[in-house]
Amino acid sequence: MLADTRTNAGVDNIATFRKLATLEVPGDRVIGVMSAGNLAISQAALHIATETGIKLPNGEMHTLHSVPGIAQAAQLLGEAVREVYRSDGPVLEAQTGEFKVSFLLGGQVGTGPMRLFQVYSAGNFIEATEDTPFFQIGEHKYGKPILDRAASFDTKVSDALKLALISMDSTMRSNLSVGLPIDLMVYRKDSLKIGLQRRIFEDDPYFSNLRREWSDALSRAYRAIPGPDWEF
Amino acid sequence: MLADTRTNAGVDNIATFRKLATLEVPGDRVIGVMSAGNLAISQAALHIATETGIKLPNGEMHTLHSVPGIAQAAQLLGEAVREVYRSDGPVLEAQTGEFKVSFLLGGQVGTGPMRLFQVYSAGNFIEATEDTPFFQIGEHKYGKPILDRAASFDTKVSDALKLALISMDSTMRSNLSVGLPIDLMVYRKDSLKIGLQRRIFEDDPYFSNLRREWSDALSRAYRAIPGPDWEF
Repeated sequence: MLADTRTNAGVDNIATFRKLATLEVPGDRVIGVMSAGNLAISQAALHIATETGIKLPNGEMHTLHSVPGIAQAAQLLGEAVREVYRSDGPVLEAQTGEFKVSFLLGGQVGTGPMRLFQVYSAGNFIEATEDTPFFQIGEHKYGKPILDRAASFDTKVSDALKLALISMDSTMRSNLSVGLPIDLMVYRKDSLKIGLQRRIFEDDPYFSNLRREWSDALSRAYRAIPGPDWEF
Repeated sequence: MLADTRTNAGVDNIATFRKLATLEVPGDRVIGVMSAGNLAISQAALHIATETGIKLPNGEMHTLHSVPGIAQAAQLLGEAVREVYRSDGPVLEAQTGEFKVSFLLGGQVGTGPMRLFQVYSAGNFIEATEDTPFFQIGEHKYGKPILDRAASFDTKVSDALKLALISMDSTMRSNLSVGLPIDLMVYRKDSLKIGLQRRIFEDDPYFSNLRREWSDALSRAYRAIPGPDWEF
């Protein structure tokens, strides 16, 4: 999971907020949550999901700390979004015309499977599959082509990490509203502990090197393709 | 200039329309016009600009065939957009909430300079410069990163052609609303004739090869970047 930290209310009102939340109880659960959209909505929903709690269909009150499975965690976060919608939605829609938030929630709880979900503003959600093994939220277009070309269900986690960083770099170069530092979390299936958690700043040696090598490789690559034999 | 040909009114209503119009009077002028946005608006504006004509500030009636300079061509097209706005804008805005069209217009007239303009829905326009030597309209995000990285004022036209095709390929892979065939036009400064005009279909040998080589190069490039020494 990789998230930038830039939020903005216009280009003259830019701030840094963590958009990757991680929850780890070693041996029991790891849940990562990334958010996009309206920051007040995502913070309110996360607060409900992690602190206040939500009553699940079975009548039990749970937070992400206690929920018995990763799918229920997505459901719980979706219900939290709906609770925020009930309280803040009417005013937001009247004033801004929209209630807009999205989340990626992934991880593993106990002996259950590792799963990844995308939660929508409406509180409903979809799950990543072998056909569509990655999700993006927020400003996704600039960074999507490299993922579409290179990322598949069989991609090794070390390659996926590089692809995520390349994708984020492409986005940051083309859109001011996405910016460093970026937060990275790697979780390996069945480990039930966070494999890597790292905030990457401008001067990170690995990321700087990757950006440079990728740019150089692209320049070499397009120059190496022969020109057409069309006359012009 | 490179334009796709896909238009859609929803994913179940897709059609092929030429979005690159070229006007050539050898020895006198070459003008290329690409459009994005509402097809009825762009066709109506182009009809006015090329057939009906517009009265310029000096009181003379002109079309793109007769206009005395390339900047006046952009101005004329902008005025044509405003004429369409006056006739169709109120109904369109009432029914769809928007009046949305954009054009790229470039070329050369007589002994004047070669110039490139982007014309907005409001009929006003901007010009490409050394700092910002390329424009994109329509679905621009997927194809922008490679241009941002590799295209500059000094890029040779043969490299620019490859970059434009790579950028369009990235867009077509990630967005169904952009599709083959694509129309290409190359104009060389001071030639006052079209250098190359070509419609590129699915089976075009050069474009097929470029797509394959680019994909292979990207795969090799990201694999060649060493992984981080972070433990995970």
